Amino acid sequence: QLSVSPNSLPFTRITNCNIGNPQQLAQRPITFFRQVAALVDYPDLLRSESNLFKPDARERAAKYLAAIGSAGAYSHSQGVPIVRREVADFIEKRDGFAADPENIFLTAGASPAVQLVLNSLISHPKVGIMIPIPQYPLYTASIALFNGTAVPYYLDEAKNWGLSKEELARSLAKARSEGVEVRALCIINPGNPTGQCLSLENMNEVVEFCKKENIVLLADEVYQTNIYKPAERPFHSFKKVVKSKGPEYDNFELISFHSVSKGMVGECGRRGGYFECTNIDPEVMAQFYKIASISLCPPVHGQLMVGLMTNPPKEGDASYPEYRKEMDDIYQSLVRRSNTLAKALNKLEGVSCNEAEGAMYLFPTITLPRKAVEAAKALGKQPDDMYCMELLNETGVCVVPGSGFWQKEGTWHFRSTFLAPENQMGEFAESLARFHEKFMNKYR
Amino acid sequence: QLSVSPNSLPFTRITNCNIGNPQQLAQRPITFFRQVAALVDYPDLLRSESNLFKPDARERAAKYLAAIGSAGAYSHSQGVPIVRREVADFIEKRDGFAADPENIFLTAGASPAVQLVLNSLISHPKVGIMIPIPQYPLYTASIALFNGTAVPYYLDEAKNWGLSKEELARSLAKARSEGVEVRALCIINPGNPTGQCLSLENMNEVVEFCKKENIVLLADEVYQTNIYKPAERPFHSFKKVVKSKGPEYDNFELISFHSVSKGMVGECGRRGGYFECTNIDPEVMAQFYKIASISLCPPVHGQLMVGLMTNPPKEGDASYPEYRKEMDDIYQSLVRRSNTLAKALNKLEGVSCNEAEGAMYLFPTITLPRKAVEAAKALGKQPDDMYCMELLNETGVCVVPGSGFWQKEGTWHFRSTFLAPENQMGEFAESLARFHEKFMNKYR
Repeated sequence: QLSVSPNSLPFTRITNCNIGNPQQLAQRPITFFRQVAALVDYPDLLRSESNLFKPDARERAAKYLAAIGSAGAYSHSQGVPIVRREVADFIEKRDGFAADPENIFLTAGASPAVQLVLNSLISHPKVGIMIPIPQYPLYTASIALFNGTAVPYYLDEAKNWGLSKEELARSLAKARSEGVEVRALCIINPGNPTGQCLSLENMNEVVEFCKKENIVLLADEVYQTNIYKPAERPFHSFKKVVKSKGPEYDNFELISFHSVSKGMVGECGRRGGYFECTNIDPEVMAQFYKIASISLCPPVHGQLMVGLMTNPPKEGDASYPEYRKEMDDIYQSLVRRSNTLAKALNKLEGVSCNEAEGAMYLFPTITLPRKAVEAAKALGKQPDDMYCMELLNETGVCVVPGSGFWQKEGTWHFRSTFLAPENQMGEFAESLARFHEKFMNKYR
Repeated sequence: QLSVSPNSLPFTRITNCNIGNPQQLAQRPITFFRQVAALVDYPDLLRSESNLFKPDARERAAKYLAAIGSAGAYSHSQGVPIVRREVADFIEKRDGFAADPENIFLTAGASPAVQLVLNSLISHPKVGIMIPIPQYPLYTASIALFNGTAVPYYLDEAKNWGLSKEELARSLAKARSEGVEVRALCIINPGNPTGQCLSLENMNEVVEFCKKENIVLLADEVYQTNIYKPAERPFHSFKKVVKSKGPEYDNFELISFHSVSKGMVGECGRRGGYFECTNIDPEVMAQFYKIASISLCPPVHGQLMVGLMTNPPKEGDASYPEYRKEMDDIYQSLVRRSNTLAKALNKLEGVSCNEAEGAMYLFPTITLPRKAVEAAKALGKQPDDMYCMELLNETGVCVVPGSGFWQKEGTWHFRSTFLAPENQMGEFAESLARFHEKFMNKYR
């Protein structure tokens, strides 16, 4: 409608705050990563005199080309071995515990990785997968697709979306009482849509719970570098938490997911990610491999981006200063934008919003007037759905209603990314405030 | 073993004839395609003076960048709209019938495309999918994964792996008598592993059969440009055959698959492909879209390669002469290699091989001595499995036993690509001949 008749709408552009897609908005890719990608795509550039490319970019591209032959060749179905080695080194350095490339599967992003694992776990409709509510809908969609049972546990908004072992126990007991065989517990940390980072204490409780109940832990850690309160709430991987608990946990089953789409990398379109298996039965890993091999291999360019993300330029490398500056600039801008948006949201009548500890999202709760709830009901819509649709129609701002993520009954939310370009944040906050006031007055 | 102790084996390299992976061997990528990919990866190159890039490569990259913003952004889950337009134009030009971008889904290669469709079709274990025997194992694997029933129909080796309507009818009747609800018929044309091209007559019979029996036709046409006897056996798309049959077939349900991995393009590692829906219920397409969106989008670089494959340089474009020469050289070399290998195979005792009409494979039948069959049985192996393993151990040549594709009981085959570098084909044929003679003498 905007392109066909631009004057027919009360706004001039759509602000896509509905999806964590940084490069759709103003975020620029990391130069070193793209230089290596271009050199791998078109190796004649390696032999050219162009001074666009620093020696470390040329070296890395040559190293990848030596390993893969061509970006046009299928790789090993589990992923290029030297990239899996880079991932293992990254994990070892991050956690201080050994990682084995044989336990790492490169994938076309975290979403297909989660689907592969859930497909393997769900062997009959009564297999239950515990998922946080609110949750990223990948989980409910995949569990439905593979015909399993979603077992919801609720995050506590009053405790900054923390989780409690009592709630985990309640959720599990309820599912078991209904004949559901609970095989796995999914944790998204930092949270999506909720943006919280789990405390170490919480994480230990989760691990103890899974061990006691003999449940596989699935740790979705794709936002591990989107950490905005590093002093109070640093990121800890579940791998590190499990390994820190000593020999009693030597058989603890954990699968951890990561992606090139998030963080400061934001290479969503490339489709790259990995999962690491900790103490997963070799026969189960053989099944993962078999499923992976049906699609032959993950995109080679996505795999190389995983290598670049986990093994970036280091101090002393020619590209390091530029890399460091680009990463820091994006990070600082995310921090500023998250604060600006949280403040703007908390000023709105009936809106309350936890500050983002991590990820790319704010998930404010909105207390809606009774008349708005009734108007939505009359339209056959959820009230937050109606709110978001009116917001889009009046301002061009696109956010996702909380009902898309599931939420505690009788509460209403929306999820907004804080990825809008920084120079548009002021205008964005103002149009949100204007809309909100009008909406509240309309239904007061 | 080769890299650790190179002198411990009777050969110095592995010849991978087990998989259609041209760029793993000597095939070079098409320059224009890779130039555009590099320019999209690293747009600073567009602003550089480098004379490596011709104007049409720069223009195409700029056009794609304007449409996608960045290769690092998620695209539409069904695929970048302008690329779907390029695909539709390609299909229209190929067939002489209209194609609609809204009916085209871009995918991460044909394998995930086939899986997406089968996942949607198989809603209970008694859903049957008719598949050719021998078949590319994507089909049996996916049907098993989604817990459906494979309904085999046999290709006739004596008629150059053609198919007969009597055999289709027999297969369907048998399945129905067992309570199987047959929903789809898969055809691989040109064939894999068999390399045949269907005659127009055969194709018409298939279409009439599906219409009469109310079965969706799934046309795997990834080898549509690997056509080696274009005068006798040109490629016809099933879309064209259906559309040529007139208004009676206006509701005929067809899904056609294509890929950037095969043909002269051979960009397997990029993971790009598409499927086109013809007369598929919009509600079914909505389900396809929903499943596609769980993984957000296919790799953007794979999508752009689909655009490049379907909309290559044209006569008059700056890159056309180079493009034309590269495509022709690869094609002519494939023709020569397929003939060389077929001749070499047909010289072997007890081996008989149809010439390749299409695809990248030969699928010779081998009549094995009784003692070899017994020796395999004693090892708990299929005889062709034992043959292929001995071939690998003695010569480094890796081919796939026919039992991996399923085959008529009591017959033995193997599948070999003819992708080995042309300058190695002589040596390859000789070592195959030496091995075969030794094997036959051993078990005579």
